[in-house]
Amino acid sequence: MGKVKEDSNENKTELSLVRVKGTWKCKLGKSDSVSAAKIYESITEKGTSWTVVSPIVFTYKVTETQDLLDPSNNTLLLGHITDPQQLEDNKKSNKQIKRFLVVDQDVYKIYGPKLTKYLEANNVLYKILALPTTEENKSMKMVLKILEEVDNFSLDRRTEPIIAIGGGVCLDIVGLAASLYRRRTPYIRVPTTLLSYIDASIGAKTGVNFANCKNKLGAYIPPAASFLDLSFIQTVPRRHISNGLAEMLKMALMKHRGLFELLETHGRMLLDTKFQVDNGVYGRNCLQAASQSTRIAIVTMLEELVPNLWEDDLNRLVDFGHLISPALEMKVLPSLLHGEAVNIDMSYMVYVSKESGLLTEGEKQRIISCMVGLELPVWHEACTMELIQKSLNDRLKHSGGLVRMPLPIGLGEADICNDTSCEILDRAYAKWCDELSVSSDSNSDS
Amino acid sequence: MGKVKEDSNENKTELSLVRVKGTWKCKLGKSDSVSAAKIYESITEKGTSWTVVSPIVFTYKVTETQDLLDPSNNTLLLGHITDPQQLEDNKKSNKQIKRFLVVDQDVYKIYGPKLTKYLEANNVLYKILALPTTEENKSMKMVLKILEEVDNFSLDRRTEPIIAIGGGVCLDIVGLAASLYRRRTPYIRVPTTLLSYIDASIGAKTGVNFANCKNKLGAYIPPAASFLDLSFIQTVPRRHISNGLAEMLKMALMKHRGLFELLETHGRMLLDTKFQVDNGVYGRNCLQAASQSTRIAIVTMLEELVPNLWEDDLNRLVDFGHLISPALEMKVLPSLLHGEAVNIDMSYMVYVSKESGLLTEGEKQRIISCMVGLELPVWHEACTMELIQKSLNDRLKHSGGLVRMPLPIGLGEADICNDTSCEILDRAYAKWCDELSVSSDSNSDS
Ligand SMILES: NC(=O)c1ccc[n+]([C@@H]2O[C@H](COP(=O)([O-])OP(=O)(O)OC[C@H]3O[C@@H](n4cnc5c(N)ncnc54)[C@H](O)[C@@H]3O)[C@@H](O)[C@H]2O)c1
Ligand SMILES: NC(=O)c1ccc[n+]([C@@H]2O[C@H](COP(=O)([O-])OP(=O)(O)OC[C@H]3O[C@@H](n4cnc5c(N)ncnc54)[C@H](O)[C@@H]3O)[C@@H](O)[C@H]2O)c1
Ligand SMILES: [Zn+2]
Ligand SMILES: [Zn+2]
Repeated sequence: MGKVKEDSNENKTELSLVRVKGTWKCKLGKSDSVSAAKIYESITEKGTSWTVVSPIVFTYKVTETQDLLDPSNNTLLLGHITDPQQLEDNKKSNKQIKRFLVVDQDVYKIYGPKLTKYLEANNVLYKILALPTTEENKSMKMVLKILEEVDNFSLDRRTEPIIAIGGGVCLDIVGLAASLYRRRTPYIRVPTTLLSYIDASIGAKTGVNFANCKNKLGAYIPPAASFLDLSFIQTVPRRHISNGLAEMLKMALMKHRGLFELLETHGRMLLDTKFQVDNGVYGRNCLQAASQSTRIAIVTMLEELVPNLWEDDLNRLVDFGHLISPALEMKVLPSLLHGEAVNIDMSYMVYVSKESGLLTEGEKQRIISCMVGLELPVWHEACTMELIQKSLNDRLKHSGGLVRMPLPIGLGEADICNDTSCEILDRAYAKWCDELSVSSDSNSDS
Repeated sequence: MGKVKEDSNENKTELSLVRVKGTWKCKLGKSDSVSAAKIYESITEKGTSWTVVSPIVFTYKVTETQDLLDPSNNTLLLGHITDPQQLEDNKKSNKQIKRFLVVDQDVYKIYGPKLTKYLEANNVLYKILALPTTEENKSMKMVLKILEEVDNFSLDRRTEPIIAIGGGVCLDIVGLAASLYRRRTPYIRVPTTLLSYIDASIGAKTGVNFANCKNKLGAYIPPAASFLDLSFIQTVPRRHISNGLAEMLKMALMKHRGLFELLETHGRMLLDTKFQVDNGVYGRNCLQAASQSTRIAIVTMLEELVPNLWEDDLNRLVDFGHLISPALEMKVLPSLLHGEAVNIDMSYMVYVSKESGLLTEGEKQRIISCMVGLELPVWHEACTMELIQKSLNDRLKHSGGLVRMPLPIGLGEADICNDTSCEILDRAYAKWCDELSVSSDSNSDS
């Protein structure tokens, strides 16, 4: 980075940016108030060329909380503030708090009254926009609709973050709208589905669908904060819990054997209790499994996303299950949920791993059984060998000429493979269909 | 940054991100392949909170070049590549180069044939989209139109930057479109007006108008490179040269007495020769003034923009002339060009400086004369005291409670002022109208 082309008839100079009395100056060498940014000036007979190297630091919080909508909990309104002094000032100030909120329509039906009560109890000047943030509506049109309302509300882009409450679709749309408004307005994510709790709330990605392609437009701007309250999950339909479990299983297979074993042992319980306290058969075990498994999923996810916030590094373990699934998901839309398509992709890849000698037959079977236990489809007729080949070829094209296929090695470890042969892919496909097509058929109908 | 709230019943841990065999792990302390990103984990009885601090490094080039459209000049196609090895590989490779270009319609009328010839001579697989990129069309609608065409062309977002050729409007629209496509596709700026040459090509800002407000939607994503070729300026209408000179004058007044004196002495010549070689009366002087003045303008602009790429610091000298002008520009649209509105704002501010005792009467008169020499309006009837007050109040609201008014001190130096009294503003306004309303009227009609 910042290398300047070697050239015999060229003069190169590294200039530091030094601030003197409110104005920045290019200076050789170092001094007191130096910026981390650099300008490299290079003079040739054709003219001058400046190479700029400027770092931007993103800071954001991912915070677990309980009773987010309890009027005495100020997390939703002040929890994004990282500077202790600013937090103090905010608490003391008697300026009325102003917030613009976008809420998934279905979530609003359930939590609207509680949310309104919360805002009123805290004397917030607010506007709630309840929108049908479905995958089909995940488009620039909805982004612009939100922006019009935001603009009418006229908020201060420095101190009044936009709040998104809903599943991944809502968080992604609102994140993009906020990132565009005045070139960047902070926003807050409150995930209400399991999938968005452990995935869409952790990284920097926002997006909408475009030209029949998932998340083709978007930005890499993290929220100011994500506030995680497991209690929202209690009203999520069972199928959507499975959907989120698929992304948890992804992290387990790639990075964490302990998480895999948790899901293997307690998957059914987590589905039955929806990550809530249980006063019935499961008892205390239940909350512990819920908080342990979500926490491991979040930390492993943070580990992979944070050093690669803008996905400049193409070798990404989090892409496991995401090589074939985007095409599959769009092909059969809306019949498969995102996590379901991901799981079908992972299931096939487990067979590829087995055929590559990276997994034993026993490990393979344990993984597939775990998937079935999580009530996830492990096979789909639309996932043909043609679709697989096409997806991997597309991947090759967009990943700098390498397929960069994350494959599990044993349980909870993985590697990125670039040299899986067609023969292995074919053999894995044949076995996969042979062993899973029937069982899965009945499973996906359930 | 990255401070974690002090709290007695809280456990704080700083975790480095260390890569081991393709997977990232949170680790205490340091090791070999450590990411610059950090996670701070903080555990309380309410749950865990993670504070993420992750730097993204932007690298881009601003390159002066001659004969950009000469088929033997490979700057347009390869000049953005900073890595020498990659550049070598690219030159050697016999893979056909693929480029998507968006060109201002009027620019296309003049330079289209030359551009086409250039691309064909270099055997480029290309698509040129010529669009009416006017201020009135500077909207999300045009961004989406570009995105549709980009998507049909199907380019590789890692290696095939989108090229924008035109004035600031074209560069801003295309920059935003590229920044949205697949969450970020590199783009290249080729400015064809003086204003975009010394301003819109230097920093990270992109944008479109929204809700009757200038650049209300946008992003802070710098281009991969800006390629500057002064020869485009030869066809720019005289009024648009003045327009660009206003932004140059801004930098002169804020930071560079030498540039001010260049504009004072050679302003008329630069207007007459349009920054080109002159074989007539002006002789060699002319090209020297053109290249000196543009280079100083670019370097002073880089100095102010690069350490503050995302405008997090609200104290910005480059905001001089941009406190009142946005409202003025939108109010009388399309009768004032951007630089003209900026100049009217600067002219009033010069009176404020004088009344504040920061400028002498002589300096004030030199500045106003220089403006008139550059054929810029120095007064406008739509710039009323009400508009001024409203603009400064808006500024107060969006700049954290301080007006942060850049004011010239003498020639080529400035300061940011927060305590200019209403009385001074009023007195300056009265004098400004008194002294300039007549002369300016006749001037702006020319
Ligand atoms: N930004 C990222 O990093 C990221 C990561 C993963 C997924 N995603 C995106 O997330 C989306 C999928 O997210 P999702 O699975 O949350 O889908 P979703 O947002 O469509 O929500 C699923 C359904 O659950 C309903 N719902 C939400 N919360 C509820 C609650 N508490 N009680 C009852 N019903 C509730 C919604 O109305 C919706 O019908 C995809 O568009 C995907 O691209 C983004
Ligand atoms: N991104 C930034 O940092 C930044 C900085 C300053 C200004 N801007 C934006 O730039 C815009 C103003 O830019 P502009 O003044 O270049 O306006 P513009 O893009 O509208 O161009 C002015 C006119 O000149 C014509 N033109 C362009 N090049 C020509 C050439 N070589 N020969 C003949 N005609 C030519 C265009 O067709 C147009 O009619 C504003 O929208 C402003 O917001 C952006
Ligand atoms: Zn996913
Ligand atoms: Zn400007």
